[in-house]
Amino acid sequence: MSGFTHFDAQGNAIMVDVTDKNITERCATASGCIRVSREVFDAVKDGTAKKGDVLGTARIAGIMAAKRTWELIPLCHPLMLTKVTIDFVMEEETCTIRCCCTAKLSGRTGVEMEALTGVNVALLTIYDMCKAMDRGMEMGEIHLEEKMGGKSGHFQRTEYFEKI
Amino acid sequence: MSGFTHFDAQGNAIMVDVTDKNITERCATASGCIRVSREVFDAVKDGTAKKGDVLGTARIAGIMAAKRTWELIPLCHPLMLTKVTIDFVMEEETCTIRCCCTAKLSGRTGVEMEALTGVNVALLTIYDMCKAMDRGMEMGEIHLEEKMGGKSGHFQRTEYFEKI
Amino acid sequence: MSGFTHFDAQGNAIMVDVTDKNITERCATASGCIRVSREVFDAVKDGTAKKGDVLGTARIAGIMAAKRTWELIPLCHPLMLTKVTIDFVMEEETCTIRCCCTAKLSGRTGVEMEALTGVNVALLTIYDMCKAMDRGMEMGEIHLEEKMGGKSGHFQRTEYFEKI
Amino acid sequence: MSGFTHFDAQGNAIMVDVTDKNITERCATASGCIRVSREVFDAVKDGTAKKGDVLGTARIAGIMAAKRTWELIPLCHPLMLTKVTIDFVMEEETCTIRCCCTAKLSGRTGVEMEALTGVNVALLTIYDMCKAMDRGMEMGEIHLEEKMGGKSGHFQRTEYFEKI
Amino acid sequence: MSGFTHFDAQGNAIMVDVTDKNITERCATASGCIRVSREVFDAVKDGTAKKGDVLGTARIAGIMAAKRTWELIPLCHPLMLTKVTIDFVMEEETCTIRCCCTAKLSGRTGVEMEALTGVNVALLTIYDMCKAMDRGMEMGEIHLEEKMGGKSGHFQRTEYFEKI
Amino acid sequence: MSGFTHFDAQGNAIMVDVTDKNITERCATASGCIRVSREVFDAVKDGTAKKGDVLGTARIAGIMAAKRTWELIPLCHPLMLTKVTIDFVMEEETCTIRCCCTAKLSGRTGVEMEALTGVNVALLTIYDMCKAMDRGMEMGEIHLEEKMGGKSGHFQRTEYFEKI
Repeated sequence: MSGFTHFDAQGNAIMVDVTDKNITERCATASGCIRVSREVFDAVKDGTAKKGDVLGTARIAGIMAAKRTWELIPLCHPLMLTKVTIDFVMEEETCTIRCCCTAKLSGRTGVEMEALTGVNVALLTIYDMCKAMDRGMEMGEIHLEEKMGGKSGHFQRTEYFEKI
Repeated sequence: MSGFTHFDAQGNAIMVDVTDKNITERCATASGCIRVSREVFDAVKDGTAKKGDVLGTARIAGIMAAKRTWELIPLCHPLMLTKVTIDFVMEEETCTIRCCCTAKLSGRTGVEMEALTGVNVALLTIYDMCKAMDRGMEMGEIHLEEKMGGKSGHFQRTEYFEKI
Repeated sequence: MSGFTHFDAQGNAIMVDVTDKNITERCATASGCIRVSREVFDAVKDGTAKKGDVLGTARIAGIMAAKRTWELIPLCHPLMLTKVTIDFVMEEETCTIRCCCTAKLSGRTGVEMEALTGVNVALLTIYDMCKAMDRGMEMGEIHLEEKMGGKSGHFQRTEYFEKI
Repeated sequence: MSGFTHFDAQGNAIMVDVTDKNITERCATASGCIRVSREVFDAVKDGTAKKGDVLGTARIAGIMAAKRTWELIPLCHPLMLTKVTIDFVMEEETCTIRCCCTAKLSGRTGVEMEALTGVNVALLTIYDMCKAMDRGMEMGEIHLEEKMGGKSGHFQRTEYFEKI
Repeated sequence: MSGFTHFDAQGNAIMVDVTDKNITERCATASGCIRVSREVFDAVKDGTAKKGDVLGTARIAGIMAAKRTWELIPLCHPLMLTKVTIDFVMEEETCTIRCCCTAKLSGRTGVEMEALTGVNVALLTIYDMCKAMDRGMEMGEIHLEEKMGGKSGHFQRTEYFEKI
Repeated sequence: MSGFTHFDAQGNAIMVDVTDKNITERCATASGCIRVSREVFDAVKDGTAKKGDVLGTARIAGIMAAKRTWELIPLCHPLMLTKVTIDFVMEEETCTIRCCCTAKLSGRTGVEMEALTGVNVALLTIYDMCKAMDRGMEMGEIHLEEKMGGKSGHFQRTEYFEKI
């Protein structure tokens, strides 16, 4: 099964053995965005400043989901995140809300799936809270930004694509 | 709180009252994709045909996550899906794996969040299983395709954007 | 087992049979409070008005927990809440934050446990977010305020204690 | 955000970074009570001695909930409790059932939320099992008794209030 | 895919569409056993009569697990059980503890998986609580006893095997 | 409470204190089987080779359940598995599908309950996916095969029964 780590020699799915991996500090940042209508964009912006806090709710949902990543993704190892943060940027011109999630751990496996899951569920929550106004919203550009710690070393998206 | 249904008059988040809504058949289809490297694309395609079934695992993960949507999205109503299916299309030229999730219910609320959550978690699972080969993969174009049943009526993405 | 409904004739715990109960609209309201230091009280009040929204986070936590009541309380029936709201009142003189949760359902069993669980977890979340400032906070006066629907009829706390 | 640890400088909720905290033995004890009618009190007492074990069920529920605290409280870190015990005292004169939960951990964060959650869910379970007899029961006096380990040091409720 | 209902025509796993099935009363009973050493058998028997209630704990675990069957079994529909009971029989001569679980529902799908899951988790809990005394215990004879309601009609194990 | 470790001196259920136990590598293997009709056996065998992969789905379900063992078994400690694998053997002559689960951990408590839970849920999933063809299937011979690490030392089922 060249390339895959989540299958054994017979092609059966496995949860990879990380027992002997070193406990190191690991950190990952992922990001993604949701493109919304002008009406939704203004309502979210307005709500954040005053009342009806869409992004505050999405942040809580994303943090809670990041902690439960191993329940959702079949072959992810259970792990105990030591930090999760979620930030949003409102991009006025394109009516885009960008979400960024950073997860951290002192452990045996990386936390990129946790960062990505945090982004996905935060964006889904924005969708849920705004869908009465606009059903055409679209989520996209969801990817890993950076990853540190562990044997595979430092990954930075910008560098990665420069090299290719 | 003009526009928002998930806040009360004071801007406090609420789980909307749907007690008096009619029980009708509701159905929603969402889709999204993940763009991968040629190496990953070929490995997934190969695995699906023979052994090491990435898409089979992602399908199970997506179906299981769709059932738990209400645990993840704070203001979603708990509901009992009566059907979930997840399909994948391999788009050879662009190294894109497209995922489509349909959820169905006989109940008081729509199931678009369930369909979207199914897509998101299926794509995350593909990412997880292939990330040892490629950390530059990106998920995108995640949106609602169609929605039937309930007071808000029939929504079809193509029609929706023609009208705008 | 006179009085108990959650035990059979041999004293074994059971999840009571509600198959034949009527599907009616059921509603319950519970309340409770947390007494905090003046420092905490002012910080929460300040945060709610501006930034650092303790009560917004506690509200989300309470709503999400109410939906999962049947997972926590061993003999509770799983049910699909059709509405949950959580409100807070800041009682200035006594440095008390009062929490009120209303749950609603069209179903076969009452929702008082859901309303009570919503209150409990909302209060616990306030405790968690403020504990760095004050570890002497105390939760109390957690009880059912009102309950409607179902065979046992209308319960109102004030009337109940007048009768006794 | 003076005082709060669960918000960043902008007032956004975060799961605090504990990556660099020392792994030490941490222990916390919380308590609380439920005041019930004489009828309920006698039935519970009787059941514990013979059959229909309300407190045994509440103990199991409390232990199981303590383990899942981080799923319920949004900004709690996931952690692996190494011990949980729940004890009850029946206070005859006031028809009060007092519950005490101790949680222990060798880790980076304290376990007071786990002890408090154990108490809350144990009391809720007593309420659930006795509510057919009495809907006027009230939970209260839920607080931290003692806390050891970690940078914030030893907290003991009695001492704490003597100092104030 | 002759015979299978959980795959579509292409062999992909699906959660079967039950939207149009009738809501009827459905009931299922499953049983199974665990064979233990004489020492364990006597300790369990003694504990049940006096203190250290292994079976009481296993009963609670089985009931709680039955409610969560749809989270564990990938293609099971989420459903709201209206009754769960678990009973044990101590078979003295063979040091066997037999467990029987009955689940009930007014709904669109059968509840045999719920009854079987209740049995499995109750038996696992007995194993867990007694494993310090005996690691050779074995679970077996886990099967469906009876099933009523739904299109597939009445199934009774004894009759079924007489016919074959 | 001679023999039991999960009860205190008063017979109350407790989650045993493992705070001071050494962190060592621990590993456990459990197995079990399901006896099915010839029709089911052939369909499963056929599906595995071509399409409609029953065992692939059961494997994922078993791995995911092993991770959640501590949520299901009341007094199990939460722990972070570092490896889970599930294998199946098709025994042609007796129409038996045998399942074997290995779990691994670097921690303070053994992982035999995790291995056993993996087996149980994998077998339940096979039952679920084949039940439309045969409701007489039976699960059995579920036991611990081997266990390494921790104070109780090495356990091997074959040796264990030779000694008795």
